[in-house]
Amino acid sequence: MIRRKVIATALAVLAWLPGSAAAQTDPLPSWNDGKTKQSLVEFVTRVITPGGKDFVLEPERIAVFDNDGTLWAEQPIYFQLAFALDRVKALAPQHPEWKSKEPFASLLKGDVKGALSGGEPAILQIVMATHAGITTEEFERTVRDWIATAKHPKTGRLYTEMVYQPMLELLRYLRANGFKTFIVSGGGIDFMRVFSEQVYGIPPEQVIGSSGKLKFELRDGKPVLVKLAEIDFIGDKAGKPVGIQRNIGRRPVLAFGNSDGDLQMLQWTAAGSGTRFMGLVHHTDAAREWAYDRQSSIGRLDRALDEAKAKGWTRVDMKRDWKVVFPFAGQ
Amino acid sequence: MIRRKVIATALAVLAWLPGSAAAQTDPLPSWNDGKTKQSLVEFVTRVITPGGKDFVLEPERIAVFDNDGTLWAEQPIYFQLAFALDRVKALAPQHPEWKSKEPFASLLKGDVKGALSGGEPAILQIVMATHAGITTEEFERTVRDWIATAKHPKTGRLYTEMVYQPMLELLRYLRANGFKTFIVSGGGIDFMRVFSEQVYGIPPEQVIGSSGKLKFELRDGKPVLVKLAEIDFIGDKAGKPVGIQRNIGRRPVLAFGNSDGDLQMLQWTAAGSGTRFMGLVHHTDAAREWAYDRQSSIGRLDRALDEAKAKGWTRVDMKRDWKVVFPFAGQ
Repeated sequence: MIRRKVIATALAVLAWLPGSAAAQTDPLPSWNDGKTKQSLVEFVTRVITPGGKDFVLEPERIAVFDNDGTLWAEQPIYFQLAFALDRVKALAPQHPEWKSKEPFASLLKGDVKGALSGGEPAILQIVMATHAGITTEEFERTVRDWIATAKHPKTGRLYTEMVYQPMLELLRYLRANGFKTFIVSGGGIDFMRVFSEQVYGIPPEQVIGSSGKLKFELRDGKPVLVKLAEIDFIGDKAGKPVGIQRNIGRRPVLAFGNSDGDLQMLQWTAAGSGTRFMGLVHHTDAAREWAYDRQSSIGRLDRALDEAKAKGWTRVDMKRDWKVVFPFAGQ
Repeated sequence: MIRRKVIATALAVLAWLPGSAAAQTDPLPSWNDGKTKQSLVEFVTRVITPGGKDFVLEPERIAVFDNDGTLWAEQPIYFQLAFALDRVKALAPQHPEWKSKEPFASLLKGDVKGALSGGEPAILQIVMATHAGITTEEFERTVRDWIATAKHPKTGRLYTEMVYQPMLELLRYLRANGFKTFIVSGGGIDFMRVFSEQVYGIPPEQVIGSSGKLKFELRDGKPVLVKLAEIDFIGDKAGKPVGIQRNIGRRPVLAFGNSDGDLQMLQWTAAGSGTRFMGLVHHTDAAREWAYDRQSSIGRLDRALDEAKAKGWTRVDMKRDWKVVFPFAGQ
C-alpha cells in the first residue's frame, strides 16, 4: 500500500505540471500559418478530444500517405525508376543480349528518354529485369547500397534527403497523437521498406505498395523468398483501397495524396462515417521544388483536384503553405 | 529548469521503487511450471535485456501465431467452415438450384460429412458461395452476427470462448515486453479480423490470412470493395512466409504453430540470425480438448513434429504444460 501511495504521489506531481512540453511547442514549424495548417491541427484536436462528437479511439486512428510526390519528390523521374536504371547499367555485363534489345539498348547508350519512350511495357521490362530473379534479402541489400550513395540529378542530394520536411512533421505530429501512419503507394513495397523506418519513422509492416509474386524455396536447407517476374499487386488508383483492405483491414480517418492515382484512396477514406481528413499536396513551387498538375506525365493531378474542390478536401499549396520544402533547405 | 527538475525528481521516485508490479506477478499463470514455460520466460528476458547478446530492438520484436489449433480450437471442423455451412443454410432460399447441386444438396439435407466428402474442391465451392459476391462491409456484418451467437457443437460455448487461455496470456506477456503480435493463418483474413482485436488484442492490420480478390466500385457514388469469387492468396504452408513478407516485411523472432501447415513459417523464423523462438502446440489432451497429431485430417502434425525434435524447437504439450485450456474452465 505504501508503495502504491508513493507511485500515486509521483504521478500527481507529474500531472500537476501545466501542460506537457510537446503541447507548448508548434508541432508543425515548417507549415506557414493559414487555413491549411489550421485545418490539420483542428482535425487532430477533434479526433483526440475524449467526449467530443468526433473523438476516434486510438486503434482506429489510421492515417495513410502516398509516397512519390506526397512524402518525397518524384521529379524528373520516380526515384525507384532511377534505381532501376542504375541497376540495368550495373547488371549489363551479365546480359550481353541487352546491347541489341530495347529498352535496354537505348538505356545503355545513355538515352533514358528513348528507353522510356516504350511507355509502360518498357518500364515493366526494366523493373522486372532489376527487381526479380533474386531473393528478398539480395534485393534489400541492393537497394540499401544504392540509396546510401545515389544522388538526385538536380540537387545532388541523396534521394532520402528529397523528402518534404512539413510532411515529416505531420507524420510525427499524428503519431504523437496516437495515429498509426502508413504508406500506401504504387511504388514497390520491397523498395520503400528499406528506408521507410529510418526516413519516415514508418516500420515495414506499415508500408503498402506494388509487389511481385514470391516463391518460398529451401536452398541447401536454408529458406529463401525469391522475387518472381510476375506481378502480384499494383497499388495504384483502385489498387489503393484494395491494398488498404488487404494490409490494414480498417478504413483510414486521414489520407494524403498528390495525384489522380490517389483519388480512389481519398474517396474510400471520405466515405467512412464520422470525421475524416482528405489532403492533396499540390506541386505549385517551381523555384523550391517543381510545379505541375493537370498536364504532367508524372503525378498528374487533374480529376482529384476537381473532386477535392467539389468536396472540400484540403489542398496543400506547396508554395503558399510550406515554409521550407526539403530538410536541407534549413529549418 | 525548475519544471524539468520536478519531472526528474518524480521519475526518480518511480524508478527507485524495487521492480514494477508487473514483474512481480506471474505473467503466465495458466502455464504449469516446467521447461516449456521456463523457455518462454527465458527467451523474452534475453530479448529485452539491453546490452545482452540476444537483445532485440523493440521494432524488430515481431511475433507470429497461427490461429486454428494454435490460438483457438479447430475441432471437429475449422470454425470458419462451421460459419460457411451455416451461411449455406441461411442463403439456401435464394439458391433453389442448390437442392440438386453438390456439395450444397447434401449439406442442406444435414449430411455435413457427405458434403465435405468432395474434399478441397467442395470446400472451395462452399467458401466461394458464402464469402464472395458481397462487399467487405456486408461480409463483416454477417460474420459479426454469426460469431456473436453461434455455439460450438461439443461445448455449447461461443466460438470466441474456445480460445486457449495460456496463449492469451502469452500474447499479452509478449506485448507487455514490446513485441508486436501477428496472426499468420490459412484462415480467411476478413473472417478473423472481425474478432481478432476483441478476442486476442490483435488489431486488423496485424492479421494475415487467405483472401479473395477485391474489386473497387462506386455504387451510386459510394465506394465499395466487392469480394470476388477468385482466390488472391492462400496463407498456408509456403504461403505463410510469403504472407509475412507481404504484410510485415520483417522476419519474426518468435513463431507459434500447431501443424505441418506452419512448418515453413517456423523454418523462415528459425533461419534468421540471432536468438529465435519456434513453438508448436501439440494437442495431447483428449479430456480437456482433443488429442491428435500425425494421422489427423485437420491440423495434421507430422513433419513439423519431426523437425521440431531434430532442431530443438519447443513443443508445448497441452496436457502437461497447460494448467487450464479454455478461459471458461476457470483460472
